[in-house]
Amino acid sequence: MATIKDVAKEAGVSVATVSRVINKSPKASSASVESVTKAMSKLGYRPNANARALVSQSTNTVGVLVSDVSDPFFGTLVKAVDDVAHQHNKHILVGNGYHNADEERNAIELLINSRCDALVIHSKALSDEELIRYAEEVKALVFINRNIEALPGRCISLDNYKGAFLATEHLIRNGHRNIACIASSHAIEDVEQRLAGYQDALKANNIELSTSYVEYGEPDSDGGERAMTNLLTKSLPITGIVAYNDNMAAGALSVLEENQLELPRQMSIIGFDDALIAKYLHPRLTTIRYPIKMMAEKAAEIAIALSKKATIETEPMVYSPTLVQRMSVERNML
Amino acid sequence: MATIKDVAKEAGVSVATVSRVINKSPKASSASVESVTKAMSKLGYRPNANARALVSQSTNTVGVLVSDVSDPFFGTLVKAVDDVAHQHNKHILVGNGYHNADEERNAIELLINSRCDALVIHSKALSDEELIRYAEEVKALVFINRNIEALPGRCISLDNYKGAFLATEHLIRNGHRNIACIASSHAIEDVEQRLAGYQDALKANNIELSTSYVEYGEPDSDGGERAMTNLLTKSLPITGIVAYNDNMAAGALSVLEENQLELPRQMSIIGFDDALIAKYLHPRLTTIRYPIKMMAEKAAEIAIALSKKATIETEPMVYSPTLVQRMSVERNML
Repeated sequence: MATIKDVAKEAGVSVATVSRVINKSPKASSASVESVTKAMSKLGYRPNANARALVSQSTNTVGVLVSDVSDPFFGTLVKAVDDVAHQHNKHILVGNGYHNADEERNAIELLINSRCDALVIHSKALSDEELIRYAEEVKALVFINRNIEALPGRCISLDNYKGAFLATEHLIRNGHRNIACIASSHAIEDVEQRLAGYQDALKANNIELSTSYVEYGEPDSDGGERAMTNLLTKSLPITGIVAYNDNMAAGALSVLEENQLELPRQMSIIGFDDALIAKYLHPRLTTIRYPIKMMAEKAAEIAIALSKKATIETEPMVYSPTLVQRMSVERNML
Repeated sequence: MATIKDVAKEAGVSVATVSRVINKSPKASSASVESVTKAMSKLGYRPNANARALVSQSTNTVGVLVSDVSDPFFGTLVKAVDDVAHQHNKHILVGNGYHNADEERNAIELLINSRCDALVIHSKALSDEELIRYAEEVKALVFINRNIEALPGRCISLDNYKGAFLATEHLIRNGHRNIACIASSHAIEDVEQRLAGYQDALKANNIELSTSYVEYGEPDSDGGERAMTNLLTKSLPITGIVAYNDNMAAGALSVLEENQLELPRQMSIIGFDDALIAKYLHPRLTTIRYPIKMMAEKAAEIAIALSKKATIETEPMVYSPTLVQRMSVERNML
């Protein structure tokens, strides 16, 4: 591969001049821009992005940390950040944290060390204190799906409690009282918040249920299958289910169908996220909408604005989930 | 933020010594390793990844180009590459090409300019000639879902023709003759190959159908809905459908259900990919398995091996699709 020295020789200028042209310095004369560009093209020379980043202090990269990019929820998040980055002629660097503290820390360090211009971070396993230290070090860092009081304006989150409360109350309004909860086994705050929303909605309606009504599993369809199987095994008089997310609801539905329950007559179920899968389940899944695309776009816009030292609003941004009514919840006639 | 000069001053050594310690040069004495490490930790100094990449000529990064990371098919591909990268202590850089020549070219250039150690490229819009030029420039570049004869050992692809032939023949064996095809509107070779597989399977069984039996749409569920609606509008005596992928099949199923067809008795349908969604559709979708996880892992392993100048096998790697029988194809009794 041709080096910068080869280009300088070919163009009949100094290496410093070639460098000025590559880095679009105003000091480069139009004659040298022309001769250097011609020489670069003739020799097939590629300016080294790492060298340019050292000079310009900009990599034109937005770093994104998610839990797992193969989960469509995070795929949507990454796509939304990419769309905004694209509008600013930036590309993205993606890391997976798998809701694990070491993985999240490693991925954030890698993104910071790669000198991303802006960062959108979905961290669940690291403490507020550790994230605040990162936020102090990197000014253009925005957290998504996390609310840290000390960082107003740099956290975009969803009111998980409200979403689960809404879901549970929708079942109660439809005459259900024996409502089970299929929760995620991940030790993250979302799980606690949604569980509290479920419990408080029951309490507000004077419904008392034992902890046997709560089953845990990995937050995917396999986890939903296992949790649903456990619930059926316990012979509880359940008529309604609040699921942690649509994937778990999909798994639960498939177990209910295998066990030949008539749906939704014999069992109502409500999901969370409004993922693509929700409208193709059978019955079509009633769910709680998680506006992840809108939230990720906002996070990317703020992070890029911060990277340009723009002033941002410092109000906390807690988004509200909404109810999406489809066919999986029916009036309880049992 | 502390600079390398601050570290040198704190440690009482030269900048060159600090640099040798950071880049793990064998020339660094154990005394200087100790004093520099202590100084770096005290000052919170972060070695600049771009500077290190310039010295070590390695970024520890695997670049991945896909069409659209928010499509679960590509999410699975990216995850598989990340898993393999992880085993080699590397992280990934992801670009979206959206099946568009300019977007694909820009993304590949960005990945190359970022000096990725290895590249796994899913390109559909660029010509063989252009991709061969990239492959010559970057030795650790592997193509996935593409078969270029001049690059044996560096292309991992699927026999799309065989998959569609298999799908169509499965319907024919179940007594269907009026078989429609829901194709993708993207101008990529996969579409042509699958269409040829459909047509040749019909021909091999002496079935002649007009081109009205083929409808096109975006390769997602919305596109499937639109194509299915168009097919129903034409009042053709269809009893079976071969869909371009599972997402389009999901859209088609939802239109059939809305139109109150009894499934699968009144309409059999077969998908392609065996995506997560397939087993949760109603009826559970019979489909053609695309072993994308296995293929992406292989691509990543070869790319990383090439980056270490290892010798690789140079046989073409064309994977075979297989039939996954579920509930959406029934014997034709109409």
